[in-house]
Amino acid sequence: MRAKILEAKKASLEIAASSASARTAALVRLSEILLKRKKDILAANKKDCRAAQDAGLKESLVSRLSLTDAKFSAMIKEVTSVSQQDDPVGKVLSAMLLDKGLVLSKISVPLGVICAIFEARPDAMVQISALLIRTSNAGILKAGKEAKNTVAVLFECIRDSLRSSQLPEDAIQLIETREAIQNLLQYGSMIDMIIPRGSSSLVRYIQENSRIPVLGHAEGICHEYVHKSADLRKAVLICKDAKCQYPAACNAMETLLVDSKIAGKFLPQMAKALSGVELRCDTKSYSILRKKGFSVKKAMASDWKTEYNDLILSVKVVGSLHEAIDHINAYGSKHTDGIIAEDNDAAQVFLSQVDSSSVLWNASTRFADGYRYGKGAEVGISTSKLHARGPSGMEALLSYKYVLKGNGQIVADYIGPNARPFLHRKF
Amino acid sequence: MRAKILEAKKASLEIAASSASARTAALVRLSEILLKRKKDILAANKKDCRAAQDAGLKESLVSRLSLTDAKFSAMIKEVTSVSQQDDPVGKVLSAMLLDKGLVLSKISVPLGVICAIFEARPDAMVQISALLIRTSNAGILKAGKEAKNTVAVLFECIRDSLRSSQLPEDAIQLIETREAIQNLLQYGSMIDMIIPRGSSSLVRYIQENSRIPVLGHAEGICHEYVHKSADLRKAVLICKDAKCQYPAACNAMETLLVDSKIAGKFLPQMAKALSGVELRCDTKSYSILRKKGFSVKKAMASDWKTEYNDLILSVKVVGSLHEAIDHINAYGSKHTDGIIAEDNDAAQVFLSQVDSSSVLWNASTRFADGYRYGKGAEVGISTSKLHARGPSGMEALLSYKYVLKGNGQIVADYIGPNARPFLHRKF
Repeated sequence: MRAKILEAKKASLEIAASSASARTAALVRLSEILLKRKKDILAANKKDCRAAQDAGLKESLVSRLSLTDAKFSAMIKEVTSVSQQDDPVGKVLSAMLLDKGLVLSKISVPLGVICAIFEARPDAMVQISALLIRTSNAGILKAGKEAKNTVAVLFECIRDSLRSSQLPEDAIQLIETREAIQNLLQYGSMIDMIIPRGSSSLVRYIQENSRIPVLGHAEGICHEYVHKSADLRKAVLICKDAKCQYPAACNAMETLLVDSKIAGKFLPQMAKALSGVELRCDTKSYSILRKKGFSVKKAMASDWKTEYNDLILSVKVVGSLHEAIDHINAYGSKHTDGIIAEDNDAAQVFLSQVDSSSVLWNASTRFADGYRYGKGAEVGISTSKLHARGPSGMEALLSYKYVLKGNGQIVADYIGPNARPFLHRKF
Repeated sequence: MRAKILEAKKASLEIAASSASARTAALVRLSEILLKRKKDILAANKKDCRAAQDAGLKESLVSRLSLTDAKFSAMIKEVTSVSQQDDPVGKVLSAMLLDKGLVLSKISVPLGVICAIFEARPDAMVQISALLIRTSNAGILKAGKEAKNTVAVLFECIRDSLRSSQLPEDAIQLIETREAIQNLLQYGSMIDMIIPRGSSSLVRYIQENSRIPVLGHAEGICHEYVHKSADLRKAVLICKDAKCQYPAACNAMETLLVDSKIAGKFLPQMAKALSGVELRCDTKSYSILRKKGFSVKKAMASDWKTEYNDLILSVKVVGSLHEAIDHINAYGSKHTDGIIAEDNDAAQVFLSQVDSSSVLWNASTRFADGYRYGKGAEVGISTSKLHARGPSGMEALLSYKYVLKGNGQIVADYIGPNARPFLHRKF
């Protein structure tokens, strides 16, 4: 493990010094090599899928693992799209003239060595590798073990593309076991960021057992709050989308908060639209819905803190906007929360006081996503407030440095009774 | 401790929801109250200074502790300047039209609860409090115990200014002992950032014993590299400034690297200019300087990793630009490193390949500082690559959130064979 990390570290300095055109060439090569080796890749993938089926793995997992023709084409298209994107490294982010002949620039640079953990989705491996190459980072990748044959061929393709473009092939490393991750977490100071895409228990394990900064989120406990001023037709549509459009997503709604003034009218409409969803209700919503003949359950205290990732929803009646905000700040996961309201002022208070990475007004929580936010490929959704917050794209893989160019200036001249003044002029 | 943190957390949500004008009013009030209580503050400070002298503390510490008339005026001027600065919270950083009637904005927000630890400099307490108020953050402050009487009066002034401006006075909390810090480090998830201004052992202790993100640096092992193309007159001036202008600063030079092609000519000039500085030399520089009659020492392996903060300098002759870069990346602290060269290409390679938060060309390392970089007040110099890197001002106390405003949009409409396309148009 230490050897792999050292190789990646060394390669990260080399790739950081490479030219944008070399990185573009590597990405073009990657799509060519993937196409050339399509047969090998799909054969390896068939083997993985068969083994997964034989092992009795869930249909949803086998489907994520499976590289169909359509997914293969989409994967190539994505690499091509990344190869055509403007190179983000070495850009002057801002510049200032400190004094005549003394120019300070803030320049975008790669982070260094990034560890990415993803589940058994071979296309995710190609996507993250393309983004790492575009941003001049080195990467240590860990895929789900179910994808091991596919991953092995893809890894060869990625290393080939680097080598044939005079970039260090060690810039992309592969690790294969959970134990390897545990081992890696001890080398905190040598890895600049870790991106765990996986179960919330994996993410929490990493957050609690390492000092490596994590880009991601352990949980998505997302809320929609239906204010008393809400257009109830909109509210029903939005809440149904937020819960049912893809319940396994981290940005799906887990708790519905309803203002007491409209609960009697809204909840029965909502329950009807959510037929098939198990509703876990607080006392007030339970009583309203039972009276109308809906079969609902009573919520337990733990429900307000639970991410179901399933067709289950906890429901609570709140007495005021502030009670809704307090509930979300106390029980939510600072991921994505929305208000449905026609009252502008109420919406503004909600948007400013809910302390989450995405706050929405009259829109489904499911919009909180890198692609929908216009970022191209999504690197992850971060609930940290530092570095990248919310749905994050390529910018999350970058840092910056200050470059000061002078012609012999010394600080002593700018200090004391006859100090030269600084200009500090934007440039 | 838990109670104080909970108070700060609650106050952080309240102050985050406050208006820019309330924050400005609090800052104006703060300067008024400080002036009104000047007599009390200076009397308390006299008491602290006398106690420090009686306890035989170092002259430099007593001088930092002492609030002279000039320092008091500078402190008031700084609060006034922060009160006049453009409020940085709630700014639209970027905006995008995702679709007709669906607008995504990225808005600046405070980080939340920030813990700041500083030494016995009463003016630093007022400065950081002003910055926290301006950025709508709550703060937990820890001052050096030598300043305890001064700090107590200043704390009253700060809380007064908050209360009389209808801001939560709990937004600024004070802790007084080292044990309190140890205790605080356990509440990692409730504190958004910690800013330790103090000894490198304090910073390292915090980095190693907490998951709270740290803004700062444990060490500043800064280098100047004199390239073979250097203008030796400039090189002597810059290196003298970098070492001697203020040797206790984190951005002072600790190691001088000299290209072998010019070492024989340059080193004697340099040693002459650095008379009074203890030189710890590698074999080559030792031999050159001893031959010329300079009294120098031999460097040990540990010298290349040592921050002296004193009139001591380690000196090494390197065979090439790349040897210099490798030495800095291996032994430096990723703080601030410079090259002195007339060769443009060599300088570019150095600036791009040295992995430090500030890289300089023909300028003293002492320039790496928030004030000199035009940031107004400096919050700290960060050697982390995430969030804030290098000399950081008020922007380091801010995060952002995404705000999405719609009128009933659902994701289902943007998915599948008849998917509505996104516009993704800059706004």
